[in-house]
Amino acid sequence: MKKIRWKQKHLLGLKDLTANEIVTILDTAKSFVEISERAIKKVPTLRGKTVCNFFFEPSTRTRASFEIAEKRLSADSLNFAGSSSSLVKGESIKDAARNIEALKVDMIVIRHSSSGVPHQLSHYVNAGIINAGDGINEHPTQALLDMFTLREKKGDLKGLKVSFIGDILHSRVARSNIWGLTKLGADITICGPRTLIPRDVDKLGVRVTNNLMEAIEGADALNLLRIQFERQSEIFFPSIREYRQTFQVNKDVLKKAKKDVIIMHPGPINRDVELANDVADGKHSVILDQVTNGIAVRMAVLYLLSGTKQQLSLEESE
Amino acid sequence: MKKIRWKQKHLLGLKDLTANEIVTILDTAKSFVEISERAIKKVPTLRGKTVCNFFFEPSTRTRASFEIAEKRLSADSLNFAGSSSSLVKGESIKDAARNIEALKVDMIVIRHSSSGVPHQLSHYVNAGIINAGDGINEHPTQALLDMFTLREKKGDLKGLKVSFIGDILHSRVARSNIWGLTKLGADITICGPRTLIPRDVDKLGVRVTNNLMEAIEGADALNLLRIQFERQSEIFFPSIREYRQTFQVNKDVLKKAKKDVIIMHPGPINRDVELANDVADGKHSVILDQVTNGIAVRMAVLYLLSGTKQQLSLEESE
Amino acid sequence: MKKIRWKQKHLLGLKDLTANEIVTILDTAKSFVEISERAIKKVPTLRGKTVCNFFFEPSTRTRASFEIAEKRLSADSLNFAGSSSSLVKGESIKDAARNIEALKVDMIVIRHSSSGVPHQLSHYVNAGIINAGDGINEHPTQALLDMFTLREKKGDLKGLKVSFIGDILHSRVARSNIWGLTKLGADITICGPRTLIPRDVDKLGVRVTNNLMEAIEGADALNLLRIQFERQSEIFFPSIREYRQTFQVNKDVLKKAKKDVIIMHPGPINRDVELANDVADGKHSVILDQVTNGIAVRMAVLYLLSGTKQQLSLEESE
Repeated sequence: MKKIRWKQKHLLGLKDLTANEIVTILDTAKSFVEISERAIKKVPTLRGKTVCNFFFEPSTRTRASFEIAEKRLSADSLNFAGSSSSLVKGESIKDAARNIEALKVDMIVIRHSSSGVPHQLSHYVNAGIINAGDGINEHPTQALLDMFTLREKKGDLKGLKVSFIGDILHSRVARSNIWGLTKLGADITICGPRTLIPRDVDKLGVRVTNNLMEAIEGADALNLLRIQFERQSEIFFPSIREYRQTFQVNKDVLKKAKKDVIIMHPGPINRDVELANDVADGKHSVILDQVTNGIAVRMAVLYLLSGTKQQLSLEESE
Repeated sequence: MKKIRWKQKHLLGLKDLTANEIVTILDTAKSFVEISERAIKKVPTLRGKTVCNFFFEPSTRTRASFEIAEKRLSADSLNFAGSSSSLVKGESIKDAARNIEALKVDMIVIRHSSSGVPHQLSHYVNAGIINAGDGINEHPTQALLDMFTLREKKGDLKGLKVSFIGDILHSRVARSNIWGLTKLGADITICGPRTLIPRDVDKLGVRVTNNLMEAIEGADALNLLRIQFERQSEIFFPSIREYRQTFQVNKDVLKKAKKDVIIMHPGPINRDVELANDVADGKHSVILDQVTNGIAVRMAVLYLLSGTKQQLSLEESE
Repeated sequence: MKKIRWKQKHLLGLKDLTANEIVTILDTAKSFVEISERAIKKVPTLRGKTVCNFFFEPSTRTRASFEIAEKRLSADSLNFAGSSSSLVKGESIKDAARNIEALKVDMIVIRHSSSGVPHQLSHYVNAGIINAGDGINEHPTQALLDMFTLREKKGDLKGLKVSFIGDILHSRVARSNIWGLTKLGADITICGPRTLIPRDVDKLGVRVTNNLMEAIEGADALNLLRIQFERQSEIFFPSIREYRQTFQVNKDVLKKAKKDVIIMHPGPINRDVELANDVADGKHSVILDQVTNGIAVRMAVLYLLSGTKQQLSLEESE
């Protein structure tokens, strides 16, 4: 196995990583895939390391994915959720972070409804911070698993045409993907209602359209974003029915797509809203591959950030 | 140790098992009992297996029992509870199940307030599903631990006289016991207010009575069911006071019972409602034995469903 | 390593321990400190032991500290929180305790809003009970980590001058410290608004004052207590502003303190209320040392109560 060079202490967002660093994560993840295929899905790599999972927004799939990744690496996991923690009640983030550090925790996985909380934490602690989604800012491990899946299905990301369709404005998944994919040379199109496109997004080097067919024609991959009803206090589009008519990806619109286009979705899907039921489960869909790949990608991130001196050992734990 | 043949992938209910399969679980459980008596209560049998515990109804004792069983077998446990999960919020059961499967989870323990949810899950996933209580349908591991306890205390179940007293209508515990015990040849009586007896229950081959003394006289075991105040939106009986006068098991009514009758209860007890305080703690009571036996029974179920190829090893984990 | 004699089965409060027993815990904790400094922070001491953490009051730091201590000793942890447990719903403490015992749990860590619950539990079970804070009664592991920190910073506790400042009335931390420190011969002063001083506290052998300067002059350590807004249904002091002017520890009042005074706080801090921001983070503060020491102290308590026959092994887990 070639020697891995890794210097980052935190994973706050793909904005902060170089193309080489992103490739290192994806390559490392590749070597972790088969552990979850074994009868005994566990290696001793992070034994005796402590990882805190702080989820201040509800999460089933991302939390499960991180916790499974930690356990398959033999780390000790601690879980804190919701408003039960003093981090939200009265204690400042600074105090919370320093307290966690004083407990000699090695890594902190954090999801928070406010953009920037993981960055703030990283100023105060020695422990490695992994952003599991902060407000509408970034969700780097989701973008990494998207990129990993793209690479598995399509090979080199350079020149690959990827379209993001839906609510771009509130999507930390889209933002992280845009940072990561542009660094690796992909061609990105974003598509959605005018009210759900961020104002200056064209400065990030992506093509913007409000016409679904322009996003579909010629694309190698469509990444459907969830219409996040729960975040939308304002009215961003007239009705679900109108959204469906204009932006839903279904069999009809896919007639104009490349034969081998792949359909991605970070989940959970609003079936028959942004994505037709039969397409979600159809031959183009790689949505469940994304979920599976998330484990390997998160194992890779935990391994790299742990800075563990021991050689990467994928031997079965003794 | 004799070779175990086991072909079921899921444990959805005792309705679906043969008498032989039930006996296999009880025999296997027998061999797990002494692990919880050791100084080091742990064997490596399920190391590297991932088990998800999904509890969509509040549960302390059943969840604790499963989680302890998993840990004593060295499995990795993941816990999801209550309404915090997207399974209840917006995501369909099908999507949830497929996502869990994509995480390469080996077994899913599920409790849900709707009857049939574990069956539905089992149609969509490869992981083994264990029903930890679904609506008013079944609670198979509770019935298995009841049967295990009966066998420990009374020997062969064939011809054993077992009476269930209380709210039969809403009791998944009673339903699972009826399926299991009739298959093993026990004689079952059910007894309760007319409004709390299911309509067609006599078709299941049980005797029905509304007279407590008929249920007590000659019985080898009384299994008291909890009056589940929280489930009863309609008024099924005039008052707790009247229920107590007519159906409470106490010292007085036990004068008509066999000298060696045993008293069972799935817990939590409403003390001095369905069961008199002194009887709950008295010499006939095997209620805490039931709790202890629950661990061994659940270890057996997890072990059998895991389909682990390795020989059953009850050696201390190295 | 000298042989440890330990006979207590529970840790309910420092009121119940002898001076020798307290010293034994502190000495044992000393030997556990370096485990959390290792790359692999884990020893096999409590492998195969089951520890239940029952937190019926919200807690982040104490729960995290206990759970980390358990995992670093390789115990299996079970967590139950909040009102989701039947312990609070309908089930009596006695039944809950007996059920836990029937699960063959070795130790129970419990926090409860009612004073005396840990004592009650201890009457019914064989498992070791560790009080993690009960009402306004005791919080013994917090006091032990305070005493450990004092000893690390100041040496022998005999004759040491320690002042507790703030809400003494509602502070289980103060109560446990008073029991422990007086047994080891420290000189204690308590200081706060008249309404927040318990009536008969002078009978415990402590000096009482309402004058902050009297508490500060000559003190070796100041232990600041949190103003617990959430507990105060009555109005105990006119306003936060007035409290701050009269009792806040800040740079100004510290001019009258000993040069090497240390500042302690059980956390979470109300910054700029009971303690000025710059002092909380300043050179006198040992607040984060307290947090770190909490792990070693809790490991020591778990180890001693486990009554594990095996010699204290601090070897890395194999």
